[in-house]
Amino acid sequence: MEFQSNIKTIEWSDDCSKMINQTLLPYEFKITEVRTAEQMYSAIKNMIVRGAPAIGIAGAHGVALAACELSKSIDNKEVFLNELQKKSEYINSSRPTAVNLTWAVKKQMETAKSITGSISDIVTALKNNAKKLENEDIEINKKIGEYGSTLIPKGAGILTHCNAGALATVGYGTALGVIRSAFAKDSSIKVFADETRPRLQGARLTAWELLQDNIPVTLITDGMCSYFMKQGLINCVVVGADRIAANGDTANKIGTYTVAVAAKYHNIPFYVAAPTSTIDISIDSGDKIPIEERSGEEITHVNNNWICPKNVNIINPAFDVTPHELISGIITEKGILTPDFKDSVKKLFT
Amino acid sequence: MEFQSNIKTIEWSDDCSKMINQTLLPYEFKITEVRTAEQMYSAIKNMIVRGAPAIGIAGAHGVALAACELSKSIDNKEVFLNELQKKSEYINSSRPTAVNLTWAVKKQMETAKSITGSISDIVTALKNNAKKLENEDIEINKKIGEYGSTLIPKGAGILTHCNAGALATVGYGTALGVIRSAFAKDSSIKVFADETRPRLQGARLTAWELLQDNIPVTLITDGMCSYFMKQGLINCVVVGADRIAANGDTANKIGTYTVAVAAKYHNIPFYVAAPTSTIDISIDSGDKIPIEERSGEEITHVNNNWICPKNVNIINPAFDVTPHELISGIITEKGILTPDFKDSVKKLFT
Repeated sequence: MEFQSNIKTIEWSDDCSKMINQTLLPYEFKITEVRTAEQMYSAIKNMIVRGAPAIGIAGAHGVALAACELSKSIDNKEVFLNELQKKSEYINSSRPTAVNLTWAVKKQMETAKSITGSISDIVTALKNNAKKLENEDIEINKKIGEYGSTLIPKGAGILTHCNAGALATVGYGTALGVIRSAFAKDSSIKVFADETRPRLQGARLTAWELLQDNIPVTLITDGMCSYFMKQGLINCVVVGADRIAANGDTANKIGTYTVAVAAKYHNIPFYVAAPTSTIDISIDSGDKIPIEERSGEEITHVNNNWICPKNVNIINPAFDVTPHELISGIITEKGILTPDFKDSVKKLFT
Repeated sequence: MEFQSNIKTIEWSDDCSKMINQTLLPYEFKITEVRTAEQMYSAIKNMIVRGAPAIGIAGAHGVALAACELSKSIDNKEVFLNELQKKSEYINSSRPTAVNLTWAVKKQMETAKSITGSISDIVTALKNNAKKLENEDIEINKKIGEYGSTLIPKGAGILTHCNAGALATVGYGTALGVIRSAFAKDSSIKVFADETRPRLQGARLTAWELLQDNIPVTLITDGMCSYFMKQGLINCVVVGADRIAANGDTANKIGTYTVAVAAKYHNIPFYVAAPTSTIDISIDSGDKIPIEERSGEEITHVNNNWICPKNVNIINPAFDVTPHELISGIITEKGILTPDFKDSVKKLFT
């Protein structure tokens, strides 16, 4: 039985990109319509859409939107492609860590350049390709879910951090895709969701989407993971990824690394679930992954209210890198990579 | 040079217990006056006063308040002592984990029973003893600070969790006492404060009191500790304690254990700073420390606003136990205990 989830996070429709506005969840469910490259840049930057696979698709949509726009005023194909390249780079600069954005924007530019026809043909091709990547994303996640579910023991307690769910992808999710597939086979599994400060994606998004799907979830604060591991209530950890280096080092939401260290200490397997588009074979280790630093306000404020004295110093890295030696397996749509990741990643890409 | 700090968290004055209302910080500085045993029970339970040493003193004040009250209606000494015993047990039941509360209430009852004079003499003795324990607390913390400061390398980055500061004691603090003493000797040290979800004592209290004393502090979320450890910005961890078992296992604010695991992984020393009244030699390991479970609202709400969907399941343990093998030293007013703690604790109490 395949698990049915109806959440559609981002969708190309009627020549615009429609997305669930994730800054409003769980308080309000609202679809935001994005119609220009500039709007897409700010939708990604301000995390109306977030999650590595979802911002990949958002990037692909953004290039299609830019193409629609440029085609109205430019009739020289070379000029058009040059301007489209600039818009693509602009969209790609909205957030630095997730490689899926770069991957999807590049895919779109390759498509644009490969079209021998008119500018109008290019626009059509980019729209079709955006739609294609969208559909592929869900299929990929279902495969990740299927592979990953074989790793989950019967009745397991599964800890996840941040949101690598339907809301981080077009639908179904990566880490939560594994959980959905596991739940379809064994409804006795239990999920622990780290609230994931500072932006509380675990509390706001993961808890919300698992409740939508009636999957049992307990919300905990980020510091509690070791407590529940020691109690024997957590049997494995599954998280998503924003970028995976060729040696398996994995950038993911800040706090993931601490969870991985805790899992190691308690001899609990720690899995990363991500599409192969998240793997960046151009870098040999996690040291080279750019880590976005975001506004201090994300820490000093919750729901627009101060939670600390006004003049305190803040450093707010949005991601951290979990070294490959803490990772038990990387679950992709092409199968489960196991250590030594340098070898298994290499094999995957040759 | 001794570091001067003017924060006085709790003080017996004019026959009542005056305390900084810590639920209002850092937004408002307000002194709350507690005049009955019942008011003290709720002040402790609702965390108007919190921190193991401070709630010890609050307990001592509570017994003195109960004695004042009972003396107005009871003139038989035996009846008086029986009723006082009941009130003491009631106050002691306000929170289960910190042993200092039990310790201080017991001290007061011993004092009460030792007085050969009248009920009025007992009342006077309990008030004097409350004041004495108060003054001793500050002296103890200064000694802890002095011993602990010898462990801090020049220019160190020091991570602390929750608030084991002036606000957790009568004044000066235990973990933050170590930091104050270290800062008096070397103003190049830097403090990292975990915000400490769910109740945000790090963000609300530790950041506030270090800023009051102009000690540089960077506020981080609880999941970030490993990131900053890996960066080399954290050279040691100093935390407080709510109860220490005879083998060194230490109960402290939830999340402490995760920090200790992270410190171990990064080979960073992890110190506990606490008065000897925090050591409970009656229990041989941390497994026997009762862990308070508090209301789920502490997780689901920040500043009275929901941060998650309304029907999510919550488990909210207020403390965790850091096993002795993760602790590099326990800094007390009588010196620094080192492993094997079973031996060093035993030596201290014989």
